[in-house]
Amino acid sequence: MSLKSNPHIQHGGYDFLYHLGINTKDVDIKKLFNDVKFVCLGGSQSRMFKFVRYIGAQLNVKIGENEEPFNYAYKTDRYCLYKAGPVLCANHGIGIPSLSVVINEIFKLLFYAECQDVIFIRIGTSGGLGIDPGTVVITTNVLNGELKPVHCTTTLGRRIEHPTYVDPDLAKELANLFPDESFDTVLGTTVSVDSFYEGQGRIDGALCDFTDDDRETFLKTLQEKGVKNIEMESIGLFSFCHRAGYKAAMISVVLVNRLVSEEPTEDDEARKVWEQRPFSIAYRFIKSRLDKAQGIS
Amino acid sequence: MSLKSNPHIQHGGYDFLYHLGINTKDVDIKKLFNDVKFVCLGGSQSRMFKFVRYIGAQLNVKIGENEEPFNYAYKTDRYCLYKAGPVLCANHGIGIPSLSVVINEIFKLLFYAECQDVIFIRIGTSGGLGIDPGTVVITTNVLNGELKPVHCTTTLGRRIEHPTYVDPDLAKELANLFPDESFDTVLGTTVSVDSFYEGQGRIDGALCDFTDDDRETFLKTLQEKGVKNIEMESIGLFSFCHRAGYKAAMISVVLVNRLVSEEPTEDDEARKVWEQRPFSIAYRFIKSRLDKAQGIS
Repeated sequence: MSLKSNPHIQHGGYDFLYHLGINTKDVDIKKLFNDVKFVCLGGSQSRMFKFVRYIGAQLNVKIGENEEPFNYAYKTDRYCLYKAGPVLCANHGIGIPSLSVVINEIFKLLFYAECQDVIFIRIGTSGGLGIDPGTVVITTNVLNGELKPVHCTTTLGRRIEHPTYVDPDLAKELANLFPDESFDTVLGTTVSVDSFYEGQGRIDGALCDFTDDDRETFLKTLQEKGVKNIEMESIGLFSFCHRAGYKAAMISVVLVNRLVSEEPTEDDEARKVWEQRPFSIAYRFIKSRLDKAQGIS
Repeated sequence: MSLKSNPHIQHGGYDFLYHLGINTKDVDIKKLFNDVKFVCLGGSQSRMFKFVRYIGAQLNVKIGENEEPFNYAYKTDRYCLYKAGPVLCANHGIGIPSLSVVINEIFKLLFYAECQDVIFIRIGTSGGLGIDPGTVVITTNVLNGELKPVHCTTTLGRRIEHPTYVDPDLAKELANLFPDESFDTVLGTTVSVDSFYEGQGRIDGALCDFTDDDRETFLKTLQEKGVKNIEMESIGLFSFCHRAGYKAAMISVVLVNRLVSEEPTEDDEARKVWEQRPFSIAYRFIKSRLDKAQGIS
């Protein structure tokens, strides 16, 4: 059997998942990963370390020896890869190219492990538009830096636009399941660009060719299009997962209201609390789905 | 005084370099960093940790207490930032968006520190074309995924092409200074794309819409254009540095000959030896420049 999204990839051969440091001839991929039902991705390694400890404790499943998460990508420092029962957790770094590397290798891993019905969830951070820092955005639509719902990339020397798909039912389910009253969760459009400064209309990078008025006009245009937040990975996530045949969602907490300030809060403690919020939504969703699968709900 | 590449950035105010975790009000940026003359960048944190230990030992300068490198970006795990005398060292992660974040913050740091005549050097890894693994490529020209010498990005909702500049004299100086006879160093064109698999014409990713013949035609086209290697950051490096007014170079070791194989070598020991090669070229260049500045040469 070959992979639908790339017929060159087949069962039975060996594959070196280079950036995960995993060689399929050294480990029994199917035995280790066949029960995976959710892949949770976030930017930084330390956040995903915290997440796997959190989700492991909540689901009461083993994440390694002595409650220390086992990093399956221990041979490299590019990415981390943890597992808590049916939940695979990895960091994707910053930006779509970095995400594309690890997600291609995770797609292959899931294929070799013969996993079924896997859902991808990005638990991220972002800049908000007209919403308070600490608010969580569940993405319902995604636009690239040109404000189109496609992922632009180059293949074999040519510029290509790949489609994206955000599952509306999955987004609504995430927003509505057991609402947490300690913070606000909103549904909205996400803009996904390839820089933190210029592409997001920030005037405080080292490189900036536009004026404050240009910036305000841009942010106003985004607001008129229903944009709630801006970040750097989701257009890749929703394109890659769509092409590979997986459902995907993004739960992202806002660290700054861009109508008020350029910089994320300097308050480390506030950031720590806010960064946990997507964790709790992801957990409640995963628990709900697992309960349904076992006929508990 | 304001920054040429962004007049909104001025001396005297406070700035929170978010992804480095450095607040300019907490530290004396000028005192700490004013003597920086070289910024060395590489993808992974562990490689840059090794590099700062190497360059610190070679230059006989302090890198921290008890010979442990001090990480100025210790408040975050997104990037690391070390210093060995006049050499600032940071990792940039994978891809141009990730590089853009850290390089914008380093540009601002150099501005606040009032550094003069700084040269940027990327010490990287790449896939080679028609050259043996372990060969080092010094970039003389750079092309993006559409094989144009520009960096495409989006700003304020519009697609923009920024120029790039590779300094030919700097590239030649790097290639010719004290040639190391234990490995080959070649000058050549680098192609810089936004993915590891499709953009580089690899057929072994999870996503692939092209045939083996398409792949071969693509690699042949690259060879005809004098391309020696393919990687994921240099078009950003040569564009950002040009716009900010810094000279830049790339020294990249090849981990695979793409005309023979798709995957980098599985031989960890060989990779370790090869990854050191750009280190030694960077060191010999830095030493030569420092000697010249002191009238030793």
